[in-house]
Amino acid sequence: MEHPENDPKYVGLNVNKGISRPPVINPYLKSARKKRGNYSPGEYIEQILKGNIIFLSQAVTLLESRKNEHQSIAREIIEKCLPFSGKSVRIGITGVPGAGKSTSIDAFGTYVIDQRHRKLAVLAIDPSSERSKGSILGDKTRMEELSRNPHAFIRPSPTAGSLGGVARKTRETIILCEAAGFDTVFVETVGVGQSETAVHSMVDFFLLIQISGAGDELQGIKRGIMEMADGIIVNKADGSNIEKANLAAAQYRNALQLFPPPASGWTPRVLTYSGYYQIGISQIWDMIDEYISFVKTNGYFDFRRNSQAKYWMYESINEQLKNHFYQSPKIKKELAIKESKVIHSEISSFQAARQMLEMYFKERD
Amino acid sequence: MEHPENDPKYVGLNVNKGISRPPVINPYLKSARKKRGNYSPGEYIEQILKGNIIFLSQAVTLLESRKNEHQSIAREIIEKCLPFSGKSVRIGITGVPGAGKSTSIDAFGTYVIDQRHRKLAVLAIDPSSERSKGSILGDKTRMEELSRNPHAFIRPSPTAGSLGGVARKTRETIILCEAAGFDTVFVETVGVGQSETAVHSMVDFFLLIQISGAGDELQGIKRGIMEMADGIIVNKADGSNIEKANLAAAQYRNALQLFPPPASGWTPRVLTYSGYYQIGISQIWDMIDEYISFVKTNGYFDFRRNSQAKYWMYESINEQLKNHFYQSPKIKKELAIKESKVIHSEISSFQAARQMLEMYFKERD
Repeated sequence: MEHPENDPKYVGLNVNKGISRPPVINPYLKSARKKRGNYSPGEYIEQILKGNIIFLSQAVTLLESRKNEHQSIAREIIEKCLPFSGKSVRIGITGVPGAGKSTSIDAFGTYVIDQRHRKLAVLAIDPSSERSKGSILGDKTRMEELSRNPHAFIRPSPTAGSLGGVARKTRETIILCEAAGFDTVFVETVGVGQSETAVHSMVDFFLLIQISGAGDELQGIKRGIMEMADGIIVNKADGSNIEKANLAAAQYRNALQLFPPPASGWTPRVLTYSGYYQIGISQIWDMIDEYISFVKTNGYFDFRRNSQAKYWMYESINEQLKNHFYQSPKIKKELAIKESKVIHSEISSFQAARQMLEMYFKERD
Repeated sequence: MEHPENDPKYVGLNVNKGISRPPVINPYLKSARKKRGNYSPGEYIEQILKGNIIFLSQAVTLLESRKNEHQSIAREIIEKCLPFSGKSVRIGITGVPGAGKSTSIDAFGTYVIDQRHRKLAVLAIDPSSERSKGSILGDKTRMEELSRNPHAFIRPSPTAGSLGGVARKTRETIILCEAAGFDTVFVETVGVGQSETAVHSMVDFFLLIQISGAGDELQGIKRGIMEMADGIIVNKADGSNIEKANLAAAQYRNALQLFPPPASGWTPRVLTYSGYYQIGISQIWDMIDEYISFVKTNGYFDFRRNSQAKYWMYESINEQLKNHFYQSPKIKKELAIKESKVIHSEISSFQAARQMLEMYFKERD
């Protein structure tokens, strides 16, 4: 039998047990938004540090903008917010399509806000996203409860671009959210496949949502993701599905033993839960708290954050070095010629590379 | 019971059935070597095209040299040899330590030379290699039979350097060997872990040697390598070990079914053999011949070679772009400062990257 969540009969029937609240000011609505550029970087910073999410949201929009003047303001805001950032717990959340990620994030978020008194920012990385800034209806219906919670800030993935670019913007958004007082950050992978590595490189805890019927899930592409997980949680452990979920959890536990132990010294755990019926949520948060306290004690928390900061500096340098080369029109033209020569064995790959670089550096001298 | 190959009782007792030959001129001996630099690039090319392995060997030494004048001669030789290259079958060979790789290569090499009338070059990629040019005793005893075979050219891995550098030299050595008439090239991975990808990117067929007692072999790091394999061969299928080897082969066959089908359209095969007793070697070569004929027919052979040539051009460009940046003394100094600032959250990773690149490009303008 299909899970009630996917059953059309149940659609619109809210069985969540979170406390319903009146809707608050939605920063995405045009009416709540001042025209961008009306404020100075100093005003943005002041308001962000006060926790004003309308200004926070506009600052994120500036950093996502492709206009140079917007980016330059955004850069100043980020640098000034940096000393006030870093104090949140950053949690990466991924899972196969159909694992119930949105329902889970809705439940997790509502739980941490209501029960653990956290302020939560939910960000996403989706390099394939073509969503325009206006159409956040998707996220509002995906996370119905959370989108009405005044202590939650939900921001859709930056619109389409290279994975590196999208990920960079998300990482910068984390800084702004933390400066605005959000002490818990979820970074969700929406794209399937590559964005997991990018998310993993900006979070403290990487949570993998799985489902039962797991035989196939253990295989193929998902193995690399399993190796990154600090915790695996099996969703839909409710009703007649509990046994299957427990079985899947046991399989994941076995599979995890085959991987080399992670550098953190932490043994990844496998838990079962139900996002839809909100069962087992507190245990997941206990696990995350335990992990954070464990790695803060053994020094791995800072080590990972420092490694990530260095990683993004070098990634960014390498990306820009390549962009500068490959985006030059002269290089582009010559590269096409060289590629054809290399394929036809007229010159070696290495000679072609050498000639391209000579041309590039001569140009600049 | 331990396999006889590893049993000290049997050491030195040659039970191989290959035909013994008188030793031929060994190009690695000082007495057989003219002083390098005595010949013009034209002389090298002429002699290499005639199949003179003393000149071939010296040319490889030139390309491995760090001296600019040697590299510039080597470059000219490679470019002139390029039109005469490409006609060999390039086979990558890897396997876990203890799988009997050296004995297997000795047996395979002797077989293809004696039974299939091939001329064989055996190269290796070992980024961790610290062996000096003189100490090839290792390779001579590792491949006892083959090192005495006049139709074999065995070249140790270039000495220590970055994986990219070592791999580049090996790939250029393939060009020279092919120009010298070698129609079969083995590229062996000696290092454990990363060099497999480099080898895979320069061969037509990737052969993975495994052994029985395979439960553990299926796990961990080796999975990525299994996915690259065009054929898996289980060694030590002899005597009381045959059943275990067959069982391991069945396990590998099952495991292979879990991977997505390779782009070549070829279904990777699993065979058993004994390198030490030379059982099942011809079946391995039948498989490789069948593969080559299969991919030459469906066009994948050329496609893979072209992709590899392009891959090495771009790899080489990207490597040199990075080298140019990171090896600049001014950049090095500033990078250390920036890294520390990034770790202490004084500037963001992206601001640091931007500032580094501004400095780099300003310098050059």
